[in-house]
Amino acid sequence: MRSHYCGQLNELLIDHSVTLCGWVHRRRDHGGVIFVDLRDRAGIVQIVFDPKQPEAFTLAERLRNEYVLQIQGQIRRRPTGTENPDLPTGQVEVVANQIDILNPAEPTPFQIDEVNINEEVRLRYRYLDLRRPTMLARFQLRAKITSLLRTFLNEQGFLDIETPMLTKATPEGARDYLVPSRTHPGKFFALPQSPQLFKQLLMMAGMDRYYQIVRCFRDEDLRADRQPEFTQLDIEMSFIDETILKNIMESMIRMLFTEVLQVELPNPFPSLTYQEALLRYGSDKPDLRVPLELTEVSDLMTAVDFKVFAQPANDPQGRVAALCVPQGAKLLSRKQIDDYTLFVTHYGAKGLAYIKVNDMTAGREGLQSPILKFLPDQVINTVLERTQANSGSLIFFGADKAKIVNEALGALRLKIGEDLNLTQPGWKPLWVVDYPMFEWDDKEKRWFSLHHPFTAPKVQNIAALEADPIHCQSRAYDMVLNGSEIGGGSIRIHRTEMQAAVFRILGIGEEEAQEKFGFLLEALKYGCPPHGGIAFGLDRLVMLMVGAHSIRDVIAFPKTQTANCLLTAAPSVISPEQLRELHIKVHTTENVVN
Amino acid sequence: MRSHYCGQLNELLIDHSVTLCGWVHRRRDHGGVIFVDLRDRAGIVQIVFDPKQPEAFTLAERLRNEYVLQIQGQIRRRPTGTENPDLPTGQVEVVANQIDILNPAEPTPFQIDEVNINEEVRLRYRYLDLRRPTMLARFQLRAKITSLLRTFLNEQGFLDIETPMLTKATPEGARDYLVPSRTHPGKFFALPQSPQLFKQLLMMAGMDRYYQIVRCFRDEDLRADRQPEFTQLDIEMSFIDETILKNIMESMIRMLFTEVLQVELPNPFPSLTYQEALLRYGSDKPDLRVPLELTEVSDLMTAVDFKVFAQPANDPQGRVAALCVPQGAKLLSRKQIDDYTLFVTHYGAKGLAYIKVNDMTAGREGLQSPILKFLPDQVINTVLERTQANSGSLIFFGADKAKIVNEALGALRLKIGEDLNLTQPGWKPLWVVDYPMFEWDDKEKRWFSLHHPFTAPKVQNIAALEADPIHCQSRAYDMVLNGSEIGGGSIRIHRTEMQAAVFRILGIGEEEAQEKFGFLLEALKYGCPPHGGIAFGLDRLVMLMVGAHSIRDVIAFPKTQTANCLLTAAPSVISPEQLRELHIKVHTTENVVN
Repeated sequence: MRSHYCGQLNELLIDHSVTLCGWVHRRRDHGGVIFVDLRDRAGIVQIVFDPKQPEAFTLAERLRNEYVLQIQGQIRRRPTGTENPDLPTGQVEVVANQIDILNPAEPTPFQIDEVNINEEVRLRYRYLDLRRPTMLARFQLRAKITSLLRTFLNEQGFLDIETPMLTKATPEGARDYLVPSRTHPGKFFALPQSPQLFKQLLMMAGMDRYYQIVRCFRDEDLRADRQPEFTQLDIEMSFIDETILKNIMESMIRMLFTEVLQVELPNPFPSLTYQEALLRYGSDKPDLRVPLELTEVSDLMTAVDFKVFAQPANDPQGRVAALCVPQGAKLLSRKQIDDYTLFVTHYGAKGLAYIKVNDMTAGREGLQSPILKFLPDQVINTVLERTQANSGSLIFFGADKAKIVNEALGALRLKIGEDLNLTQPGWKPLWVVDYPMFEWDDKEKRWFSLHHPFTAPKVQNIAALEADPIHCQSRAYDMVLNGSEIGGGSIRIHRTEMQAAVFRILGIGEEEAQEKFGFLLEALKYGCPPHGGIAFGLDRLVMLMVGAHSIRDVIAFPKTQTANCLLTAAPSVISPEQLRELHIKVHTTENVVN
Repeated sequence: MRSHYCGQLNELLIDHSVTLCGWVHRRRDHGGVIFVDLRDRAGIVQIVFDPKQPEAFTLAERLRNEYVLQIQGQIRRRPTGTENPDLPTGQVEVVANQIDILNPAEPTPFQIDEVNINEEVRLRYRYLDLRRPTMLARFQLRAKITSLLRTFLNEQGFLDIETPMLTKATPEGARDYLVPSRTHPGKFFALPQSPQLFKQLLMMAGMDRYYQIVRCFRDEDLRADRQPEFTQLDIEMSFIDETILKNIMESMIRMLFTEVLQVELPNPFPSLTYQEALLRYGSDKPDLRVPLELTEVSDLMTAVDFKVFAQPANDPQGRVAALCVPQGAKLLSRKQIDDYTLFVTHYGAKGLAYIKVNDMTAGREGLQSPILKFLPDQVINTVLERTQANSGSLIFFGADKAKIVNEALGALRLKIGEDLNLTQPGWKPLWVVDYPMFEWDDKEKRWFSLHHPFTAPKVQNIAALEADPIHCQSRAYDMVLNGSEIGGGSIRIHRTEMQAAVFRILGIGEEEAQEKFGFLLEALKYGCPPHGGIAFGLDRLVMLMVGAHSIRDVIAFPKTQTANCLLTAAPSVISPEQLRELHIKVHTTENVVN
């Protein structure tokens, strides 16, 4: 039906006859001639309808935006002065001698080349939104990215193996999406939050190297940029340690950035321990593009006569930290400092102390701060020294539980980086390692896995692990890029006794462990190889690489933050017969429907 | 952790030091020496433990089947006479000088190299089942097949685009799996039976060429070889007709068979109309490897004095057909003919008339049949002529509603092909085309789509379509291979009015159409290109290509016929809290739980 794509036409094809198919992107009438920009997946080309070809011209008069056409014509060079250097095809145009209107179109709810369209409208008419060249380019790039990843992994001997979507509910982790079983009344499948246990079983099956680009599901209250269903590049390997796995994964990501963005990422990626990441950046996914760091000053504040600092400084779970902004004293207004004080309260901070360094040479006189009076000279001097302050610096302080200080100053660090345009361009990947194995939950009064219950601890000794869970580190690792966690994984437990011990520490009794994970504990007994893996959030990785601001822009048919599909109006009401077949009734607090 | 895979070792590596990882496949003690067959993904190699290396030998004495080992040793040529020509590594062995038991194993429920293991046991311990080299090879081939398909489609400009899993219930077709929404009380998502509407929307979005290897779901009562979740290679193209699409798809399948099986499939594939397929093979997915055909004899039987034949011969929906088996009179015993008579009753036939042709030269005397007396000479002669019978032939007859005759003789044709070893080896692909657009359902008293409601009819004229639905053919096509439908698709409706008309014929009222397919009808208005596509059942295609007998053998973690996962024990009971959050109650006929 066509000889070329619109976007393929160029000067080498001048005088050729072509058949094109596409959409009317724009129509202009000028000097008795009709010009149509015809659009297809490859781009846009200008079609000229001359009244001297009356048949085509008459049809062309009926054309409106988004009509679907088939056109036959001759390529010619555009008359001098009418070239369009912004268009790859801008040196040529097609003189139409035949036109076939394959489908007319009603006026669309928005113009395809309109910017700033309300997102609800975009999602409601997603098929129109996706016609926009920027959106199309994103999905072409996404396809290229997945294809490159697959090729790399195939070449490295990874087997692409599919795992079930209708599977068993996983009690640890986020909330499952459930699927009632018709043939087993009262029982439910769960949609996978990840293929974690299946990929481990594949290692026990001797598959050695596995990968899958796989849909995962989490029924969470959607935060800013989460989707109920998302796509994961899921990977697992046998007979390896952290070093082997991290090397291969780094090469993969480096290859991807070279091929897609012509960017050379560092080799190797830098690595930070969890502890160091929190100390220096207040975050376990630090954005290294921002050249600001937190400075530990807890030890200086234990004896100061300022309770706001002294109390957290003396609390084993507290922290006092400084964030020094070079030139901040000059660049940040009183108003901005007030805004930041409000900003940190969103992270639980009760305030934001600061010291303005007007003149480093003038001693106390050169400093300006409401808290100055509480701090002895030696403390001030050491703070200035540690933060490497200079005349013009502004030093912010966080003092609270360490968690709050880290979150507040970590977020402030990024905000100031953005506000003062300090964030460097480019790509800053790193590994974060040496995570704690467990985290104590004060509300539920029990240990939780920081990663997941199948992550191996660094200690091999079970007694040592059970004696001191809080100080035990795991063999987990996260890959972080520009402040986003793009991948995370671990070496897994491969022995029954260790897995059972971890379940015990997590407060999962033997009976419960049997019921929920019995098949895993059993499988571990029959010759499980040492293994580990990683999973990348593909939507987020693609989003970063294509320069989109939301993962919704790299998912063809995403859901809203209330988990609606505005296009199809899913979820929807189901017939009573269907519910009866599934042995369930709808039950809201107000009423029981059928 | 290793220098080589076990299966990679060969004579070129003799005298090399290697580090291997794998499982103890078998252990033999012979002449004071311990031999271990070590197995990994790449194969098996023999390890020798000599008492002269006491440390390794002592550890080796503890080895049992399926222990996980790391071994260091030296490759040497096997002593003359001990080579194993059945093993790719059979010319060499590894003399171990160090061994590390990475994980012991309890005795497994079955031996890994055991054949004929009960399928329930295999599924219960799937991770052991998958360790068997035949199973492993299947998944390696499956990964190769999907990789080749992707590469082909990428090169042809198809974009790999993901579509939602949590979507809207599709009222036409099989039963949906449903997912209750937590955030929208009383509403449900459905898991997709196929991405049909989304791929059409992607064409309307201008994606031009789309593919996806995608999980689909059908909550059906599982027949012999169906799974509740299955994988589809899903494809859609814009600005094409049947010829273009079928050509590309044929090339893809030919490429696949060349690359994977070194088999040249015909170019082009033969094509049969639906009508012809039924007439000649009794099936719209004929296995052309069986050199037997049905012969139409209805017209001969309208006036015979044998009601069993005359009645269907005079019924517009009836059929009398013959199936001639060359040498059948000699090869088939009385007992076999009786068995076949029982066999066809499973397909609704009431009996199986036959004529034995003992001697073609002897007239009626040369024939043997209980029905001979009812048939005049001329009828007999024409039957013999049409069926190309010879001395030794056996002619079976089916006489009933056409549907029953086709199913019974179609199945009998395959059975005899198998029993008499007539089925030719090799691969016989074909297209089946010109399907009826609609099928009348006598029970529900309404028309159903033979393909699906989005399939374009051959007529363009809506009035003509509505006036005569039964004679209208669709633009659907199926790809059939060795008697299995491996792919099916159609050119789709791309105009609102035609889509609305088809909904009307299907008895879907305007309001219902709006509610269920409103978004599609709306999308068609804004410039929908002509488009069409196809979907391949990947599990079945892989099953055929790897020579497995069940799709369960090419799915890593399949479900049983009652939709159970024997490994994880899904589906399972869910906590009352979880159900409450989902606004549902379990409700069986006996009781309401929670």
